[in-house]
Amino acid sequence: MSTELADLPPVEALARVRAALDAKTKPPGSLGRLEDLAARLALVQGTLAPSVDPARAIVFAADHGVADEGVSAYPKAVTAEMAKNFAAGGAAVSVIARANGIELRAVDVGVDADLSGVDGLVHEKVRRGTDNLARGPAMSHEDVDAALGVGRRAIVDAAEAGCRAVCLGEMGIGNTTSAAILTAALTGGSAAAATGAGTGVAGEALEAKRALVARALERAAPLADDPAELLCEVGGLEIAALVGAMTEAPAHRIVTVVDGFIATAAALVAVGMRPALAESLFFAHRSAEPGHGAALEALGATPVLDLGLRLGEGSGAVLALPVLRGAAAVLRDMATFESAGVSGAVDG
Amino acid sequence: MSTELADLPPVEALARVRAALDAKTKPPGSLGRLEDLAARLALVQGTLAPSVDPARAIVFAADHGVADEGVSAYPKAVTAEMAKNFAAGGAAVSVIARANGIELRAVDVGVDADLSGVDGLVHEKVRRGTDNLARGPAMSHEDVDAALGVGRRAIVDAAEAGCRAVCLGEMGIGNTTSAAILTAALTGGSAAAATGAGTGVAGEALEAKRALVARALERAAPLADDPAELLCEVGGLEIAALVGAMTEAPAHRIVTVVDGFIATAAALVAVGMRPALAESLFFAHRSAEPGHGAALEALGATPVLDLGLRLGEGSGAVLALPVLRGAAAVLRDMATFESAGVSGAVDG
Repeated sequence: MSTELADLPPVEALARVRAALDAKTKPPGSLGRLEDLAARLALVQGTLAPSVDPARAIVFAADHGVADEGVSAYPKAVTAEMAKNFAAGGAAVSVIARANGIELRAVDVGVDADLSGVDGLVHEKVRRGTDNLARGPAMSHEDVDAALGVGRRAIVDAAEAGCRAVCLGEMGIGNTTSAAILTAALTGGSAAAATGAGTGVAGEALEAKRALVARALERAAPLADDPAELLCEVGGLEIAALVGAMTEAPAHRIVTVVDGFIATAAALVAVGMRPALAESLFFAHRSAEPGHGAALEALGATPVLDLGLRLGEGSGAVLALPVLRGAAAVLRDMATFESAGVSGAVDG
Repeated sequence: MSTELADLPPVEALARVRAALDAKTKPPGSLGRLEDLAARLALVQGTLAPSVDPARAIVFAADHGVADEGVSAYPKAVTAEMAKNFAAGGAAVSVIARANGIELRAVDVGVDADLSGVDGLVHEKVRRGTDNLARGPAMSHEDVDAALGVGRRAIVDAAEAGCRAVCLGEMGIGNTTSAAILTAALTGGSAAAATGAGTGVAGEALEAKRALVARALERAAPLADDPAELLCEVGGLEIAALVGAMTEAPAHRIVTVVDGFIATAAALVAVGMRPALAESLFFAHRSAEPGHGAALEALGATPVLDLGLRLGEGSGAVLALPVLRGAAAVLRDMATFESAGVSGAVDG
């Protein structure tokens, strides 16, 4: 039997996948959600022999002018310092990716520092950070277009390297603030519900962050139907790059694994631009950030993991990738009752 | 700083691990339950540089006399057929283990067929299946001792091969019946709450399975304080082998990943024999079998995954292992704020 699904109507393709899974040596449905993941991998890749390898993690890093408002527990300099940490292989996403056989690319799409001399980074800086969204639009349409292009190129590069899956993450001090505004605007939720501790703000600083999100939401909410305009208003450059990557991946039949709260905010924007995308995104985990649940619900997504992570970077995506690796292997490599000579159900 | 924890009192060892995690380049606690997993890995292995590699999956296969009562949707012959499928690399656990870089050993501890000519199996048959627990004890004390020994030897073999983690699973048509009786007896639950569809029984067959579990529980419940006697009464050989493996692993500082409902029933028995074991077991996933929740709760366990799996074989354990691989890498390999030159929290 051909493993090709690409030319079939979707309903017939799904029926073929379900039949292939039910022929495998296991009681029907006994692998639960792993079978749903296998089916979606098959449809995204157009084959009954899906694979997520080679897999590449891509971390887009950029700064946010709004960091000047004290919305993060860490100074803005940490974005550049962490970009160097990615390049040196010492960050959480670096070591988890390495442990799980996933290559890592860190992309400077807008860090507010000169990183041109740092080896091991992809240098695609659009500008040195966004403007402060508390005082006006975070960036121009030209900036958004350029950042979207950085994301698209990262996928084209991955495709040229033969990658079958990408794990998408980000780094940017202040970016849970932008993500909270995007999430509230695109899910119709409140600023309070979408705003969390981020890197660890609490007490008065958290209240101030909530108030800032609420004020910005008054400008952002009316732009919910115009995702590019919304990105101009609240940023950031790394979020726009994530959007570009997500919209480019399906054309290459590359599986997209979306990390946590910020990457999911980018997914809301990307799906706003192209609704069919919702079918092709895999959500890695349920973040401890309070706004993540509403974003996942709006996307109809059930994430792979639920470990109370709230780091970002793509750390959850590189933890979830091996589950997808297992799902692909079940559909691609398992024996069938017929091929293995295993008896079927007594009444089956 | 030394990475050795083995000679420290437990409270001091845990404090050292927590301090090491908090020095890593991430907001404190931002990796959620992954940090708890990393800490437990460190304590089990006695080092701040834990590793789960090389990892080996061990699947114990055996038959159950109670299968003659129609408690499974599949015929008893499937146990032997699946043992051959493990040996040939075609089962779910085979392909997921391979995809995730985990070696697989399938052990015939009591399959009711002559598998002596099958390459790729570990031949440790104690006897050809248990007696029918519906009519009397499933096996003798000598059988239990022999099966416990098979499990212990599997761990000694893994230790000699340098393994740092084992994923423990099982295969045996009829064994959700034994697991349901063990679970109800050891958690004080009802037969109805502990009994599920297993391979897929429904309607009258499921009612009959529940009634059989309820009758056997009358004999089993009074034995809850005598785990070896309980194993004699309800079996099975593969469950006893799992118990033997779990009790042996800590002496070798091997990390034990417990698969689903049946392996967790074995964990209840093992912890009954040696209460301190509860600290050293990692539970892979929350099974769709209804009795699993009560067993996990009795063990104070929060499983790594929740994917609605109900296949067994160790399939959930080999899906969860990469998460532990990531947890170990975070503690072992991440840079510290100091080593990477990353700024700390503003108020930190």
